[in-house]
Amino acid sequence: MSLVVIGTVAFDSVKTPHGIREEALGGSATYFAVAASFFTSVRMLAVVGEDFPEDRLAELGRRDIDTSGILRIPGRTFRWKGEYGEDLNEARTLETHLNVLQEFDPVLPDSYRDARLLFLANIDPVLQAKVQSQVKAPDLVAADTMNFWIEGKRDELVSTLKDVDLLVINDGEARMLAGESSLPKAARKIREMGPRSVIVKRGEYGVALYGPDGTFAAPAFPVEDVFDPTGAGDSFAGGMMGYLARVGEINDTTLRQAMVCGSVMASFNIEDFSMDRMWKLTRGEVDERCRQFQALTRYDLPGTLG
Amino acid sequence: MSLVVIGTVAFDSVKTPHGIREEALGGSATYFAVAASFFTSVRMLAVVGEDFPEDRLAELGRRDIDTSGILRIPGRTFRWKGEYGEDLNEARTLETHLNVLQEFDPVLPDSYRDARLLFLANIDPVLQAKVQSQVKAPDLVAADTMNFWIEGKRDELVSTLKDVDLLVINDGEARMLAGESSLPKAARKIREMGPRSVIVKRGEYGVALYGPDGTFAAPAFPVEDVFDPTGAGDSFAGGMMGYLARVGEINDTTLRQAMVCGSVMASFNIEDFSMDRMWKLTRGEVDERCRQFQALTRYDLPGTLG
Repeated sequence: MSLVVIGTVAFDSVKTPHGIREEALGGSATYFAVAASFFTSVRMLAVVGEDFPEDRLAELGRRDIDTSGILRIPGRTFRWKGEYGEDLNEARTLETHLNVLQEFDPVLPDSYRDARLLFLANIDPVLQAKVQSQVKAPDLVAADTMNFWIEGKRDELVSTLKDVDLLVINDGEARMLAGESSLPKAARKIREMGPRSVIVKRGEYGVALYGPDGTFAAPAFPVEDVFDPTGAGDSFAGGMMGYLARVGEINDTTLRQAMVCGSVMASFNIEDFSMDRMWKLTRGEVDERCRQFQALTRYDLPGTLG
Repeated sequence: MSLVVIGTVAFDSVKTPHGIREEALGGSATYFAVAASFFTSVRMLAVVGEDFPEDRLAELGRRDIDTSGILRIPGRTFRWKGEYGEDLNEARTLETHLNVLQEFDPVLPDSYRDARLLFLANIDPVLQAKVQSQVKAPDLVAADTMNFWIEGKRDELVSTLKDVDLLVINDGEARMLAGESSLPKAARKIREMGPRSVIVKRGEYGVALYGPDGTFAAPAFPVEDVFDPTGAGDSFAGGMMGYLARVGEINDTTLRQAMVCGSVMASFNIEDFSMDRMWKLTRGEVDERCRQFQALTRYDLPGTLG
């Protein structure tokens, strides 16, 4: 199934307890696409500035990523600067320079319009809706969002969500969006806004799916040294959507498997700064960690008490 | 397998977003024993004051709980007062009155000394060690502890841990005990202190086992309305140890099952104040939630990428 992602391409400057990395490749669409590319081909829609190096685009192109939808416009590429303390679940934003993002008027290339799977990565919900309306007949539209839009563009976000099938969202943001501290209740409220299913990302604690076929929960794969959590959520989404595109069928069974693939991709991504771990990653390593993930979660049903 | 628990019996006064409960039955040994009693008979070692009502002991006795090791001494029963905000993972202690706990000199009744399974619930590590030395030849000694002892009696705790097989501990306290923010690393450091295995409790996010046969992680069973998280950890431990006592075999397979049973018992316990939900709970409901737990966590291994 053909897969399209719209989101950001960025230069990130990140400080974590393991070190500092300046102006590294980042952005929600980039993390997503790189993770998805291990499973399927993926088409990116994003914007960069004149300062974005050609060879970076070429590097993505070598990985089954279609970059023809990445617009280059006058100005500088989006930049984000943040740091993580000992609690690696939460970034502290130090600087955000939207730069060319402010001018981004996403238009899908014709070759993208037949996408069967669409991922609206974290970006202005108005842009998300605009892109969605350009895709002819998608089987699944999934989206991410963040506190910035929940607080600042709530009406627009709620409107966008009406046509989203699957929302992928952090636990704190799910609570904020629903105005509800109980996560099962928050998920139900969000599902009443439109999405058939909600996947709640809980950082080092894993992910949970609330959908029409019930609830599924998976822990995070334990990583001894989290070098840089940036992009973990987008890598999760990329692995998940990439897997769905690969198997070509969307149901409760494949969605659970897809979430495991997403968790595995996120676990690799955080093992080094930026996408450094992903460039070296092999398909064999992904397969192996999927098996390790099953060893991590598998158990036999306890005998009954009767 | 015979199961003994030493810990506290208390009166808890608790405030949560769902209400207030004054002087309700609580204590680590009580929560543990009530949960364990769904799986096996369990012998309690604890201390109460003159104010502790006889009929409360009788109520425990009707549930396959041996209360002959509960000493009644002059003074008042241990009391704890706390409150939970929207973040139900963390209690704020308002008052602690140790009362008779300060005089507690635990001596195992002869009938307890052949225990095959021993749980040292959260209590002074010096008392934990004293009890442990009185059990003849246990197959498994498990223990819990808390920040109070990690900070205040660290040397005594480390000494006690040398002879503990399985430590059951909150994630924040595991990090504190090990002086290490990475949980897999913290678990390894704790295992170097003595315990073959460490189970880390992560509240609403579930539990993780770090042991000689690898790592196992299970989510928490999703509960829509957490009325009162007090005793969740002890209910988990009671369900877990109770299951092990019931199956009579301790290995990686039964330990994983036992953790699921513990998670199920904890999920029931938090559905009402104090032990109110447990008094009404049936074995059929426990079996049913074990099956629901499997539906929550089950997935098929994703196909390989090869």
